[in-house]
Amino acid sequence: MEDKVLMAHGSGGKLSHELVKRCFVSKLNNEWLARMDDSAVLEAEGRLAFTTDSYVVTPIFFPGGDIGKLAVCGTVNDLSMSGAIPQYISLAFIIEEGLDICELERIVESIQSTAQEAGVSIVTGDTKVVQRGKADKLFVNTAGIGRIAPDVNVSGSNAKPGDAVILSGTIGDHGMTIMTQREGLRFSGDLASDCAPLNGLVAEMLKVCPDIHCMRDPTRGGVATTLNEIASQSRVGIIVEDAAVPVRPPVAAMCELLGLDPLYIANEGKLLAFMPSDRADALLEVMHHHKYGKDAAIIGRATAEHATRVTLRTRLGTSRILAMLSGDILPRIC
Amino acid sequence: MEDKVLMAHGSGGKLSHELVKRCFVSKLNNEWLARMDDSAVLEAEGRLAFTTDSYVVTPIFFPGGDIGKLAVCGTVNDLSMSGAIPQYISLAFIIEEGLDICELERIVESIQSTAQEAGVSIVTGDTKVVQRGKADKLFVNTAGIGRIAPDVNVSGSNAKPGDAVILSGTIGDHGMTIMTQREGLRFSGDLASDCAPLNGLVAEMLKVCPDIHCMRDPTRGGVATTLNEIASQSRVGIIVEDAAVPVRPPVAAMCELLGLDPLYIANEGKLLAFMPSDRADALLEVMHHHKYGKDAAIIGRATAEHATRVTLRTRLGTSRILAMLSGDILPRIC
Repeated sequence: MEDKVLMAHGSGGKLSHELVKRCFVSKLNNEWLARMDDSAVLEAEGRLAFTTDSYVVTPIFFPGGDIGKLAVCGTVNDLSMSGAIPQYISLAFIIEEGLDICELERIVESIQSTAQEAGVSIVTGDTKVVQRGKADKLFVNTAGIGRIAPDVNVSGSNAKPGDAVILSGTIGDHGMTIMTQREGLRFSGDLASDCAPLNGLVAEMLKVCPDIHCMRDPTRGGVATTLNEIASQSRVGIIVEDAAVPVRPPVAAMCELLGLDPLYIANEGKLLAFMPSDRADALLEVMHHHKYGKDAAIIGRATAEHATRVTLRTRLGTSRILAMLSGDILPRIC
Repeated sequence: MEDKVLMAHGSGGKLSHELVKRCFVSKLNNEWLARMDDSAVLEAEGRLAFTTDSYVVTPIFFPGGDIGKLAVCGTVNDLSMSGAIPQYISLAFIIEEGLDICELERIVESIQSTAQEAGVSIVTGDTKVVQRGKADKLFVNTAGIGRIAPDVNVSGSNAKPGDAVILSGTIGDHGMTIMTQREGLRFSGDLASDCAPLNGLVAEMLKVCPDIHCMRDPTRGGVATTLNEIASQSRVGIIVEDAAVPVRPPVAAMCELLGLDPLYIANEGKLLAFMPSDRADALLEVMHHHKYGKDAAIIGRATAEHATRVTLRTRLGTSRILAMLSGDILPRIC
């Protein structure tokens, strides 16, 4: 077989079928893909969550992950943030002609191992190829379906005044990793993306606190933008204590050097949760026992005053408004 | 607001939110998008079909449709080919920086009117922006969910020896339309893509013949490739009568001129169906009353002999093997 992706791999003909069998069906091996039908047939009941995201990150391989791991984690996390148990994922590639097939295979292997960790199946897919110069190596889309338990009701609109705001760990790791890779910056600190599937952590959290009001993963736009979305959707004010926000030293150092605020830097394995404040300590304890929640912290609270506004209390004791990201600090972070 | 898509429209920040509200939520107006959560929450029960496709067609506007209409039809049709009733669609854009926002709006309007015709809702979405020269105007991904009625069991593996093969109408219209647009060819015949949502036609078909064994839409690779897939999955032989295959005169003329075989040219509003031959006439009659089935014809039959092989009986009375497409006649057709 060829060692580069050719236009004919996207023709729908003979080479497409060979690529699908060699790279996808064999590695993602499951009953749905094996049928080779236009759709996967699934069993479902009750409330489902349904979500989609495309991934255009560059470079496609980076410390802590790659575009494939990112795509599975992103969709697993979006489902989890709705309180759903992720089950089924679709996978669509747009490939630039000339991509090394061994790179594609590495990405599919990473997709499969991430799917296994998250307990989801890649049940349907698609492959398109475009000419050299008409894409950038590889774009990936994943859509996902998850099941929502009857007693769960999580939404960006459900945050309530008085809620505690928990952040599941350190921020800025993904964004600063991509930036150093792309700009060829070399620092002593060991930076790696935090890219991780959060459904296991969320399941533990919902067990101890089924009345979590709101969860969201602070990806593009960072914690500041995500909190603004929630403040606006739920019509609450939010006060964040800067000193309570965990940032790893190498991330903090690089942000300072480059004049960036970690609150605006993307994360791919973190979540924000709003819940009644009397449950926050119990929730934190559970989170601290999970590998993706060990640095979890209460970083603030929701208020009835100043609805839709996010306020940062600085380490100096002053306050300032934390606006939504404007402009684009770092394109193609995910 | 800006009149071109900027990198910051993909940042996840302020401009992303403005774009999503102005171009997507307002035009695709429904309860799921209005919530602005990471996932849409849906009610479901029983067997579901789940599918995905990315669209990279160039040009993005063409006679008979555009990349948005194509994306909705493609996913509606993939669901329909599994015997499912399409219900929910996700929509993800990868936009090249500099795209006219009014072009994007036209495409979203086309998506909405196609979704309305098909009776589906666009319930969740995503937008990414990549730098100039890193994509080609616009790529679209749609994934879809449909409900499968309890008595329906349609699969590419279910064709049986003796089955009649029905084609729902003329072939090659989509492929030859894209080719003429791209190459700037001007012919007297009025060519237009056949791009259409087939779920209405399929619903009528399943009413009169719930035991349809297999359906598939002959898109990339055309009728010849799709029949090879079915022959291989179902382990049957298939005999096709060339004279029975409907081709519109301008498509036939252009194929002859360019030395192409319409059996390998892509369609976007046609289906192939396999069913017990004693039901074929009743099915044809129903199809002829539907706007997307009025040229439907029995084009062949499945056999126990020569399993996995597709044979074409030519107008001259000779036979030849009809192989799967090899190479790529026309890239980026969908």
